[in-house]
Parts: sequence; structure tokens; C-alpha cells
Amino acid sequence: MTAEPIRVFVTGGTFDKEYNELTGSLAFKDTHLQEMLRLGRSRVDVSVRTLMMIDSLDMSDADRALIVEHCRQADQSRIVITHGTDTMIETARAIATAQPATGAKTVVLTGAMIPYAFGSSDGLFNLGSALSFVQALAPGVYIAMNGRCFEWNRVRKNHETGVFEAI
Amino acid sequence: MTAEPIRVFVTGGTFDKEYNELTGSLAFKDTHLQEMLRLGRSRVDVSVRTLMMIDSLDMSDADRALIVEHCRQADQSRIVITHGTDTMIETARAIATAQPATGAKTVVLTGAMIPYAFGSSDGLFNLGSALSFVQALAPGVYIAMNGRCFEWNRVRKNHETGVFEAI
Amino acid sequence: MTAEPIRVFVTGGTFDKEYNELTGSLAFKDTHLQEMLRLGRSRVDVSVRTLMMIDSLDMSDADRALIVEHCRQADQSRIVITHGTDTMIETARAIATAQPATGAKTVVLTGAMIPYAFGSSDGLFNLGSALSFVQALAPGVYIAMNGRCFEWNRVRKNHETGVFEAI
Amino acid sequence: MTAEPIRVFVTGGTFDKEYNELTGSLAFKDTHLQEMLRLGRSRVDVSVRTLMMIDSLDMSDADRALIVEHCRQADQSRIVITHGTDTMIETARAIATAQPATGAKTVVLTGAMIPYAFGSSDGLFNLGSALSFVQALAPGVYIAMNGRCFEWNRVRKNHETGVFEAI
Repeated sequence: MTAEPIRVFVTGGTFDKEYNELTGSLAFKDTHLQEMLRLGRSRVDVSVRTLMMIDSLDMSDADRALIVEHCRQADQSRIVITHGTDTMIETARAIATAQPATGAKTVVLTGAMIPYAFGSSDGLFNLGSALSFVQALAPGVYIAMNGRCFEWNRVRKNHETGVFEAI
Repeated sequence: MTAEPIRVFVTGGTFDKEYNELTGSLAFKDTHLQEMLRLGRSRVDVSVRTLMMIDSLDMSDADRALIVEHCRQADQSRIVITHGTDTMIETARAIATAQPATGAKTVVLTGAMIPYAFGSSDGLFNLGSALSFVQALAPGVYIAMNGRCFEWNRVRKNHETGVFEAI
Repeated sequence: MTAEPIRVFVTGGTFDKEYNELTGSLAFKDTHLQEMLRLGRSRVDVSVRTLMMIDSLDMSDADRALIVEHCRQADQSRIVITHGTDTMIETARAIATAQPATGAKTVVLTGAMIPYAFGSSDGLFNLGSALSFVQALAPGVYIAMNGRCFEWNRVRKNHETGVFEAI
Repeated sequence: MTAEPIRVFVTGGTFDKEYNELTGSLAFKDTHLQEMLRLGRSRVDVSVRTLMMIDSLDMSDADRALIVEHCRQADQSRIVITHGTDTMIETARAIATAQPATGAKTVVLTGAMIPYAFGSSDGLFNLGSALSFVQALAPGVYIAMNGRCFEWNRVRKNHETGVFEAI
């Protein structure tokens, strides 16, 4: 493992959704990432930046290009990205495709099935997992979900069970 | 990372403490580990065994010998141990000392500062972290706390801050 | 106050909404009422029946007639109804209008702004409040929200703040 | 019910206990009452004052005299007191004994079996209940626990079950 600084990019997804009590619908406000790091008593050296705050089904090519560009420009060689689970693998592919240009970086995407703001979220578990894998793994682009970690091109989301599986 | 099965040994510690509402004091009942794995939607192949359910300040040499013996006998080469934070490093040393006899295994000890049963626990974050490090790291004995992972002989618990630090 | 048995009718509303992690949307499954009573260590003599499990914006005249009929037939003279907040007052009016036929009963409607299943719900507070008002108040039809209790025809929901106010 | 202002006196008890993660023991810091009122979206007109922050087993005659004196001096005729459950009835007796001097006030004592700061507390339910009973009941001194309300001299705490029962 490493004590190198880690860059965290927030893009939204279920992870950060909240319940709007006036409209009775789900919406984004601010990220819960700093609160989660406090709860986990994390002492990992991270710098967090919110790139966007959207549902991953609404993510456009331009949004993905922005994420890729931020990975490219990052001084850190280890990056965690919080992301909606529905198109997480697409974004991973975009980063991996651009990887030769971005240099050898370890990029781990993670997300949640249940919003952190709700009691029963998997988000804190997944964040602990992603932050650990990113410290331990060699350069590459990975998906960390369900306590496991997959290379970006060896995984699919099973939409019937909500589980990420090896392919 | 690996998809090898992982052995989890539960020994108690703050992780699993509960509030006894009749006596107004903290006590152990059952482990929350399976509930935490469910909450994290973990699909890691784990088999869990409770070895003891005690405060780590009450852990005797005989208790440590029992833990070492279970590490030795485990078929799995990757082991996570949940443990009280106060003497976690002592137990890690006992395992590391016996390691030549136990074969080359990756052993990760983790715990919590706040009981999982209380709302604001770091336990779920730490469990996600420990399960990830144990999949990714080479054989050795490690402490996973605060989102970081230390070789057993390069870490101390700072008793004023509650944080594990590199030495 | 009284130790008389209390009838509780569940009709759905935000109170009982859950997050469906496969679709990412809000939906109803079962009521959380028994779990909430356990959490509150309630020893009130209640018998609970689910009449429907719907969003109160979807409640039809036929649905309201069913609720009124159940109030009429109840052996208990004290009734709590959990209900969506958007049309809670309409249902209260339907019950009050039928009240001469139903006999002198104390009926208290309550609900929640945030689903109980999410961490930050007002539901448990409101349930404690409604169960208490129904034991203490004279026959009539009331709305219990925000720690307060209003006669059904002296209250409105402020849709900008989500707060129930006296009129 | 009433819209009169309500005085809330905080005295400590399980209600407000917290887990000290450095010592691994239970202790008092600040009251959680304002946070609980926010969570319950309470719009009751309350003014809160912390009189002491102690375990009710440690409450002395002088402490009780102080509570009685504050009840006497309160401008409000409706008062809620948060209190440890072990000696809640003793304090209620002290207030009731002094009641002729304090004037005709409605005083409701409540508490919790599990600290609010822990996930599974009955505190929010009890607070909703006590705030409601105090608005609805005639002058007197009451205990509100388990969703029920008892006159101070008609109740005992069953120490085997933790439940308050009529006598």
C-alpha cells in the first residue's frame, strides 16, 4: 500500500442523492463525501473535487470527456471517482481508452445502491473499499463494488440483482 | 486483487459492543458482521467464525494463542480479524511471530472506534477497507484502520487521538 | 389520558415509502409501523390494520369512503391513521362529516415529511405524538404534525415550508 | 390541546448519553434536544434550558431542589423535563410535593432507555409523546414513557423489563 495523496472526483449518482421533503422526490444537493470520510475517521490524504452532481443515466459524452480530462490533469497518480452505478463501466472505458495519454494512474470508480443519506446505505462500505483498493493496486482502471474490485473490461452490472459480476 | 475465499475471525472489540438498556452499560451479544456484510451488499466469498467476544484489554496470552492457531489451521490464505483497537497490534505481533509456521498468509486486523450498533460507527468503512486490503496485498500481517493499512511492526495507536499512525 | 385500546389504520404516505435500489425510485412495500412501535418501546394497547398502501395524492373518493367505513365499524373509540400529508386534511374532513354516524370517536391523523426508512425521518416523533394526543383528547377529528395537534377544520399545510399551520 | 409556550428542562439521563471513543465509556457532552426537535420538525413553542447533565442515579436532594425551584419560577404553565429513568419518579414526587407553592402547572417527565446518539433510541418517540401530553393534560405531575402517561404516584419502573407500569 501507499501513503501517496489521492484525488477524489465526485460526479453524483445514488451515492449522493437526497430526499426532497417538499416535492417528495429524490434530488441532489451537496456531496456527502466529507461527512463520510469523517464518519470513517479516515486519515487518508485525499483532496476532493465535485465535477458534477448528476444521475449517471443523464451523463453525456461531454460529461465523460470532462472526467477524463480531470484524470489527465491530476497531479496525483491515484484517483477515486464516485459515480452512478448504471453507466459506471462506460465512464471507466472512456478513462481507460484515454489512459496512455493520461499516464500510468490507478483509477477506481465506486458508487452505491442506496443513497448515503438513507439509513441503510452501502456507500460507507464502498468508500472504504475503493479508498483501499486505490492504494494497493497497480495502474489501471477499476470498478470497486460489493467489496470486490474488477478491471474495467472484465465486469458487468447485473440489472436484475444490482450486483457487479465478473465477465 | 483476488477472488480467493477469505476467512474472517471475530474476536469482539468495540466493533461488536452493544448498549444493554437494562443495566445502562456496554456489553457483547452477537457479532454484527453478517449484518454489516449485507448492508455493504458484499459479494466477497467469506466464511466467518467467532473465536471469542471480548474487550481486547481483557485478551490473554491464551486467547492470542488461540487466534494464532486458527490462522495456522485456516485453509484460506487470506484472513481478516475483527479486534479491539487497544491491543490489536499485540495480536498482530503474535501472528507475525508464528507466521513461518503458518505459511505465507495475508492477515489484516481491523476494528472500530465506535460500536457498529450505534449510529455513527466507523465500523462499516473499516470493514470495507480491511476486506479490500486483504484481497490486494502480499502475504504479511497488517493493521487496517482510518482508511489506511500498515505493516504490523510499523504502526502505533495514538491514545490521545484514537488514530493509528505510522512509526 | 386513557388506557383504552387504540385502533391504528395504515394508509401509506411518505411515512412508509422505501427506496427501491434496483429501479432507483420510491415505492411501498410493507408498513414500518410495528418496527416503529418496537423502537419506541411502546406499551400502548394498539391493534394495527393496513387499509391501503398508497401515495395520498392518488387517494380516490372510494379510498376515503373505505377509511370512513373502517372508522365507523371500529370497536375502539380512539383511532390513529397514518396518511400522506398532501391530502390528510381532505380525509379528516370526510371522517368528520361522517362522524355523527360513526359515534363519538377521537380520530388523529398523522404522517411524515421524510420516510421512516431513511435516517432522518420525523416519523417516530410524529407517531409518539399522535398516539399521545389520541389518548388525551376529547372526541373529534384531529391532525397531529410538527408536535402540534389541530382540529381538522382549523389547519392547512403550507406547501412552501411543509409545515402544518393553524387557520 | 394548547398553543401555549412550553418550558423544557434538560437534566441528563440516558437520553443524552454519548459514547466516548477514546475511553470506550459512556459520558455526557451536550444535550441532543434541539437536534431532536429539528428532526421531528417540531413547531411547538419551546424554550429549552439545561439544568444539569447527570445520570439520575447520581442525582442528589440538592439537584432535585434545583429542579423544583426552576419549575416554581417558570413563567410557563406547561413543562417537560428530560430525566434518567432510574429516579424519574422520585423527582416527580419532589415536584408534586412542592406543587401547591408552584401553582397549577402541567409537568411531564420523560427519558429514554437507549441514548439518542445511538441508532435505535426510543428518545424521539418519547419526546414526541411528552410534548403532546403536556399540551393536552390538566395540571398535575406525570411520567410519559412507552407511549403512555401516568400520574406520578400511580406508576413504577419495572427494573426487569425496563417498562413503566401502572400501580
